Amino acid sequence: MTAVDVPARFPASVHADRLRRAAREAAARGIDALLVTPTADCRYLLGYAAPGRERLTCLVLRTDGDPALVLPRLEEPLARHELGALAEDLAIVPWDETDDPFRLVAGLLGGAAGRVAVSDQMWASSVLRLRAVLGSVELVVASPAMSALRRVKSAEEVERLRQAARAADEAMDAIRTGPLAGRAEREVSGRIRALLIDAGHETADFAIVGSGPNSASPHHEPGDRVIAEGDAVVLDIGGMRAGYGSDTTRTVFVGEPAPEFRRLYEVLARAQLAAVAAVAPGVPAQEVDRAARRIITEAGFGDAFIHRTGHGIGLETHEEPYIVEGNAEPLRAGEAFSIEPGIYLAGRWGARIEDIVVCGADGADVLNRSSRELISVG
Amino acid sequence: MTAVDVPARFPASVHADRLRRAAREAAARGIDALLVTPTADCRYLLGYAAPGRERLTCLVLRTDGDPALVLPRLEEPLARHELGALAEDLAIVPWDETDDPFRLVAGLLGGAAGRVAVSDQMWASSVLRLRAVLGSVELVVASPAMSALRRVKSAEEVERLRQAARAADEAMDAIRTGPLAGRAEREVSGRIRALLIDAGHETADFAIVGSGPNSASPHHEPGDRVIAEGDAVVLDIGGMRAGYGSDTTRTVFVGEPAPEFRRLYEVLARAQLAAVAAVAPGVPAQEVDRAARRIITEAGFGDAFIHRTGHGIGLETHEEPYIVEGNAEPLRAGEAFSIEPGIYLAGRWGARIEDIVVCGADGADVLNRSSRELISVG
Repeated sequence: MTAVDVPARFPASVHADRLRRAAREAAARGIDALLVTPTADCRYLLGYAAPGRERLTCLVLRTDGDPALVLPRLEEPLARHELGALAEDLAIVPWDETDDPFRLVAGLLGGAAGRVAVSDQMWASSVLRLRAVLGSVELVVASPAMSALRRVKSAEEVERLRQAARAADEAMDAIRTGPLAGRAEREVSGRIRALLIDAGHETADFAIVGSGPNSASPHHEPGDRVIAEGDAVVLDIGGMRAGYGSDTTRTVFVGEPAPEFRRLYEVLARAQLAAVAAVAPGVPAQEVDRAARRIITEAGFGDAFIHRTGHGIGLETHEEPYIVEGNAEPLRAGEAFSIEPGIYLAGRWGARIEDIVVCGADGADVLNRSSRELISVG
Repeated sequence: MTAVDVPARFPASVHADRLRRAAREAAARGIDALLVTPTADCRYLLGYAAPGRERLTCLVLRTDGDPALVLPRLEEPLARHELGALAEDLAIVPWDETDDPFRLVAGLLGGAAGRVAVSDQMWASSVLRLRAVLGSVELVVASPAMSALRRVKSAEEVERLRQAARAADEAMDAIRTGPLAGRAEREVSGRIRALLIDAGHETADFAIVGSGPNSASPHHEPGDRVIAEGDAVVLDIGGMRAGYGSDTTRTVFVGEPAPEFRRLYEVLARAQLAAVAAVAPGVPAQEVDRAARRIITEAGFGDAFIHRTGHGIGLETHEEPYIVEGNAEPLRAGEAFSIEPGIYLAGRWGARIEDIVVCGADGADVLNRSSRELISVG
């Protein structure tokens, strides 16, 4: 791995600034406070990957006051260590094993809150407990406020996404050089995970290997099927590197590609390029989906493209913006997302090509660089 | 790894039976339907680890009718493949990318539902959408009904927990034979993760290495600190094997243990054994906590034992029952949980000993077998 080593955390000043901006975005939406449990929102705001289990950890960010972090006392040393200088900007409010942390949160909100936003991925058990202790407070999701921040990546975030993409490219190139015939999907998947880690990922979160008829199942779980001559093989791989996600798909053919598959693949490759070419600031997200879908539909495969064209990526593999019909929100410079059309013929074969792109002032900056040609493998 | 290979999934009949029993447990609590999103509840009921992201997958289990599984159309092939014969017992209800899946769920509930239970870990965004489409329906958490099933393990589940524990023991034994002095916590942690995988885990979920003063932080995140002579080192490791969790902690000393640390460790070891000895059907969970706490408190370390004594384990590393003051629920035969008292002297050192035990008719069946002696390492 030749990539520049990037530090895992941003300086405390970056997070202090994000806290201020999150409070502003919330206030602009008539929200009195954000309640953020251990989710990507928490990592974004605090740079702290708090253990997110049954014990409540919750950032209480009142738009009229200073932020407080409610956490289990046994995690206070960890939190102070991870927060570093940022701990000075927060009130740290530990609770003991026999306390009720939800009453603590209610107390920190005070009586003034009329509308409180919670992390989209907060657990239902916490939402229902908050519902019970917060009386007439209106609960809404935090995503409109949080996404306004998180979807637009800073230059440093784009750099991390680029390094993650290059690392995934390395793994993809490595797996495509070896023979696949005679190997079980599960074994190839395990090998890809090892390659992702070797290339500098902290976690290898997925390594879809869909061979033969399984290539027609977009989210196939690799199993015991042994890859054979004449198979299309969809490889969809990714994980986290320095806290940011990678996600790339290539489709290979074992042996000489069947002419019919070549035709399908050629349509798909054109559709993927058309979607990439459609990316620019101000373009509604759904137009990128339409650009790919139009080409696939005109070629007669419309019914076989059964998913949206893409999803945002950052601290999470799937986040806003979603590149899907119905999303008329204009793309903004700095937004990072996948472009991954697919064509799936049930029972026979399928193909998908996926790159991560960043919307730049002049169009898409394509982060993945591994070949998009239809490669024939052994 | 010499362990017997266990298949990853139980037969469809096991899951069909669990679905029936879950409906019964819900009905007994005045619940008209369970809504289960991709969580351990879903894996327990269906044996299907559905991709749990922003697209809604939801099992709708009406207590008066047949179960239905709402899922994104692109995941239908995956779901049918994973569900196998169980798919015949379910109505599979796919939705397209531009549909509203929450309205689909509301339609499946019909107008009759007055009280609906949701998975404890369902996302807040789903809870609030359901709240909006379900009108006057009362939403409650599913854990009382689900935990009644999940906390009592079948013989097959105990066997998987045992294999997971043995695999973690292998990793623990291996890391304790090598020298630790001169190595960074992070490097040792990475090595432990590799050992867990080598021993047959699918995932290595945590490998806490807290050395020197960091051993006093129960959930320490391994960092750049280099382990040195005179350090206590807390090793808390675990992951998932055949779908079930391992979780074990041992504390070692680098070089000859300081007499003061020996005394602390001896108290801790007695406390841990006392808690194990307190386990029996009918004993309130908090009595197991008290058994450990009494010994630690009498030795003058009461303030240094800053967490509960344990947590249940199964499809999740932390689940019911919790071994904590205030939990007066009686233990039942078949319940599996950790017993892990700790003593932490901030800024100096700490220690923890953790085993997974199963409550048997005659007391605790201790699954972990690696030595609990205070081992001195190089």
